[in-house]
Amino acid sequence: MKLATLRTADGTRAVRLDGDVLVDLGHSDLGELFAQPDWKAKAQAKSAVSGVTYPVDGADFAPVVPNPSKVVCVGHNYTNHIKEMGRDLPAHPTLFPKFADTLLGANDDLVKPAETDALDWEVELAVVIGKQVRRADEQQAADAIAGFTVMNDISVRDWQFRTIEWTQGKIWEATTPVGPYVVTPDEVGGTRPALQVTTTVDGRVMQQDDTGTLLFDPVFLVQYISTVITLRPGDIIATGTPAGVGNARDPKVFLLPGQTVVTEITGLGACTNKVIEA
Amino acid sequence: MKLATLRTADGTRAVRLDGDVLVDLGHSDLGELFAQPDWKAKAQAKSAVSGVTYPVDGADFAPVVPNPSKVVCVGHNYTNHIKEMGRDLPAHPTLFPKFADTLLGANDDLVKPAETDALDWEVELAVVIGKQVRRADEQQAADAIAGFTVMNDISVRDWQFRTIEWTQGKIWEATTPVGPYVVTPDEVGGTRPALQVTTTVDGRVMQQDDTGTLLFDPVFLVQYISTVITLRPGDIIATGTPAGVGNARDPKVFLLPGQTVVTEITGLGACTNKVIEA
Repeated sequence: MKLATLRTADGTRAVRLDGDVLVDLGHSDLGELFAQPDWKAKAQAKSAVSGVTYPVDGADFAPVVPNPSKVVCVGHNYTNHIKEMGRDLPAHPTLFPKFADTLLGANDDLVKPAETDALDWEVELAVVIGKQVRRADEQQAADAIAGFTVMNDISVRDWQFRTIEWTQGKIWEATTPVGPYVVTPDEVGGTRPALQVTTTVDGRVMQQDDTGTLLFDPVFLVQYISTVITLRPGDIIATGTPAGVGNARDPKVFLLPGQTVVTEITGLGACTNKVIEA
Repeated sequence: MKLATLRTADGTRAVRLDGDVLVDLGHSDLGELFAQPDWKAKAQAKSAVSGVTYPVDGADFAPVVPNPSKVVCVGHNYTNHIKEMGRDLPAHPTLFPKFADTLLGANDDLVKPAETDALDWEVELAVVIGKQVRRADEQQAADAIAGFTVMNDISVRDWQFRTIEWTQGKIWEATTPVGPYVVTPDEVGGTRPALQVTTTVDGRVMQQDDTGTLLFDPVFLVQYISTVITLRPGDIIATGTPAGVGNARDPKVFLLPGQTVVTEITGLGACTNKVIEA
């Protein structure tokens, strides 16, 4: 299944993609849907005949979960990238946060904050939680994954490196596209999928790698993070980005107003965001 | 006013301290109260005569705001501490996160996670937001401060220093006491109060300093953080901790089951937490 949160004139709606229509699933967003213990059966059963549908064409996607209780992001996780940087493989994942207010819809304009000229891209496979877990074992962790989506972990590099903690460069309001769909694991080869991730800026390929090379895979990350804190339905884990970010280029390259950044993952879709002036 | 969120048999309630009783303010918690534009007038007007009250004696305090949309913490902020460490004064505050699930009531038992033996204290003056702000100027920032409370920014040091990002040592489930009261600025000398902060462990003084020596004061922090992201009613900013944490001692000292850690700020009250085994 491909699930999404759609913006409509009457607020957001949880929907399922069915050919060229989006089927209303009777909930206001995917966070509310995933909080139902039987959400999978409910999402599968709803037929287009019995309910409201919306055309996919021109659909206005909200962040897949507009109000997650937590968004946890991972750094240093693509082995190719770590090796090419000459670093040792880390023993533990590096974690940093985003907040719900940081998220943006998959096709929304990305407003460059006036306070920075160092807006950078980071394509990431994101895990969306479908079941509450704490100290999950491997099976519980796999079962807690509702599905996968695309995140562009937009980073305000000058603020990120103002201090030793990255947080203030990672949480800017409405800067992190996430969507368009949450795709269930059965559609992408399971809970440790090997998918091509790509970033382009105005059509030029900036990042390209394979999620099969992740050092810490989605199931491990659910286990690790749930050791520390409860993961709740709708929570999002971003699994890190491969080589090719603008800040690591020589000379550095950042997003400019007028450009379009596309972050895409095979089988999941793409976030397509035009950068605009504040 | 001294405001709190009280646990009762029927769920949590927003209350105001009135002598030896807590007056029910008609909302389920302080987050819900502060979301009312006229919360100050409402909180002042409710008289004990017209409503339900609870005895202060034996009160079971929830985190002052049980479900803030964001908790932003500040590192390296006491000038005495920075100077004694031989560091230059930083140009910008260092920010890191907590999540709502990380919070604990002011007098709750603090369960030491089985995964660590490096549980450490950090007394902090915390700001609670009473008004939505983005890119606040100085006056807007001051007006957005509902009041102040005590936070013990409990840190799991071994996990904090596993990687270069502190987050995973700062967000452990139900480890961060915050409370017991949100005290309005008029009771503590305004929005840049000079208050004594103290930590004791089994009665031994471990930290002691004055919030008047903060490098980045509460008003500045509201301005700074709101530049990055919207601050909403109920959001919490922890303003950093002074010298004397267990991890910086030689030899290092950490909290042990059976000990009681008290973090206190003059005029605000104290969090008193007994450490227990998982």
